Amino acid sequence: MQNSLKQISGEVERILKSSSFPEKIEPEFLRSAVLDYPLRGGKRLRPAVLIWSCRMLGGSLESALYPACAAEVFHNWTLVHDDIIDDDDFRRGVKTCHRSLGGYGRENYGLDDSGAAAFGLNFALLAGDLQQGWANSLLLESVRHGVSAELALSLMDRLQNYVNRELITGEALDVELSLRNPLTVCPAEVERMFELKTGVLLRYCAESGAMIALNDAAGASREVNTLGRLAMSVAVAFQMRDDYLGIFGDEAKFGKPVGSDLSEGKITLLLLKSLENLPESGRSELLGSLGHSSYNMDELNRVRELMVDSGAVDFVQKREEELSAAALAWLGELPENEYNQYWRELINYLLHREK
Amino acid sequence: MQNSLKQISGEVERILKSSSFPEKIEPEFLRSAVLDYPLRGGKRLRPAVLIWSCRMLGGSLESALYPACAAEVFHNWTLVHDDIIDDDDFRRGVKTCHRSLGGYGRENYGLDDSGAAAFGLNFALLAGDLQQGWANSLLLESVRHGVSAELALSLMDRLQNYVNRELITGEALDVELSLRNPLTVCPAEVERMFELKTGVLLRYCAESGAMIALNDAAGASREVNTLGRLAMSVAVAFQMRDDYLGIFGDEAKFGKPVGSDLSEGKITLLLLKSLENLPESGRSELLGSLGHSSYNMDELNRVRELMVDSGAVDFVQKREEELSAAALAWLGELPENEYNQYWRELINYLLHREK
Repeated sequence: MQNSLKQISGEVERILKSSSFPEKIEPEFLRSAVLDYPLRGGKRLRPAVLIWSCRMLGGSLESALYPACAAEVFHNWTLVHDDIIDDDDFRRGVKTCHRSLGGYGRENYGLDDSGAAAFGLNFALLAGDLQQGWANSLLLESVRHGVSAELALSLMDRLQNYVNRELITGEALDVELSLRNPLTVCPAEVERMFELKTGVLLRYCAESGAMIALNDAAGASREVNTLGRLAMSVAVAFQMRDDYLGIFGDEAKFGKPVGSDLSEGKITLLLLKSLENLPESGRSELLGSLGHSSYNMDELNRVRELMVDSGAVDFVQKREEELSAAALAWLGELPENEYNQYWRELINYLLHREK
Repeated sequence: MQNSLKQISGEVERILKSSSFPEKIEPEFLRSAVLDYPLRGGKRLRPAVLIWSCRMLGGSLESALYPACAAEVFHNWTLVHDDIIDDDDFRRGVKTCHRSLGGYGRENYGLDDSGAAAFGLNFALLAGDLQQGWANSLLLESVRHGVSAELALSLMDRLQNYVNRELITGEALDVELSLRNPLTVCPAEVERMFELKTGVLLRYCAESGAMIALNDAAGASREVNTLGRLAMSVAVAFQMRDDYLGIFGDEAKFGKPVGSDLSEGKITLLLLKSLENLPESGRSELLGSLGHSSYNMDELNRVRELMVDSGAVDFVQKREEELSAAALAWLGELPENEYNQYWRELINYLLHREK
């Protein structure tokens, strides 16, 4: 799997670097901002899922490559705008797009703090808007690489009418949840938000790969459906693991401050299940421990204890196992080959990762 | 022309209201925000240009309608994000999208001023992102209304690879110009910014209408080219008129405070030409009169006097006349029918309007 991921990363980077779309963007610092996240690397999970699904069913790498790059750039524009919304400072260990642009504005246009913040926000907003167009443009390029016009139109329609709408709805629900009293949110709302915010794009990738392999513009084949459900389960389990690592992870491995979810008052399944199950005293204690600016080990360990004792950790781990068992069962209904094996390894990796 | 515009408005509104795309957006206030600008009315200039260009060359209304609606929604997402960038309060006499959403957040989520501002910004950002997807989705719908798959792919490619990129580059240059010392900006930069920010979408509309009428997916016909140039000239002349009315307009007719361009230090052709032509004393006086929070009639009249005396007003009016003369000459090379006549009336209206 690692070799395949590495090869896919190389191909994606090659295509993104040779794409003509960004070339004509001005000013130069905006062009750099558009290229920034897409060229920062990362796991290239979405391209891999699209390509493996296509190859598993006998499709060619070439026909899947441009749609895979489109999915990656699409993912990246949502990150740029997401980072504005969360006002995050870092992404993959480097300054976020709007922070980096803000610094550029300060240095090159002599802006003060508020001027630099506005500069960063405005140009990061436009960088994400451009990336949305770039993603669409990469997908259209697939008609010159073995994808029929009818199929390209269908993939395009799904990218707008399904991915754009549902993913942004998920993002909006995520923001909205964080503004509500946790006691008024039910666990099913969080799981649905995961499906929309993370699941929809991964499902689209898996389905697209299958549709390309089978030249199935309607997307009605059994394999398309099976791969779609598989990807959705994996995405939701992945998000649950992410929330778990946000509290129980090893900071050195996880790469972001453990406890920051508590500081931000992030509504997670772990938190909701704990609040649901704890007696009144524990519930008050847990609610009182949200929103601090930082957490020492004693405070963090007390939160962990409450979450374990409430049975929330067991609940979430059980749900993760259910989802991964379902995913593995679906894999059993698909052709057994090396790409099926990569999928298995991916599920195993995502659900046992510590970072 | 007015009857045709009215009919087109009605058709556009009917299609936007019956489109299924917005239906599934949540939360409900975000769905309303997505529908807000597109249903506020306005002249529907871009749909009209697309439809008239198609009808002028013998194409059907039905085949042009969805692309026309796509162009209108595309225009609207750029307005939503533009209003965030300029932090404007009003659009067409009603609160801007982010201001309106901010008010919603204050009332329904008990947010304070800064919380409401963040709420407004975040959800308006997502509303614009959704509208970009909606626009693309409307364009794809055209394959069910008489547009071939090949042509739809070509229109889609132009919407991404030309309109998205060039229009946003124009928007970025507009923001960037406002941060520079006016003495370092040359008039050609402003005219180019007009071409990108306003001209590109209007040109796309005119060309698309012709491509649909002629079923010309390559867009290489003489008529496509002629209509494209025509639209570009009209758009640039329109923007020049806008800048003129920003200083010389009658506030009661123009609908926005005359002098607000001066307050904001907006870089206009009028300003640049004045600075270029005035002697040192006049140049200093004009520069010193920028950026005040408001202008009384005496102050405004002095600025007007400097602009007239410098010859800048003559220069800009002459440039407008050149552009409209070119536009009329291009119309002469196209079929003489009622749609050609609408184009003529539009040019006449845009260049002599006082609001």
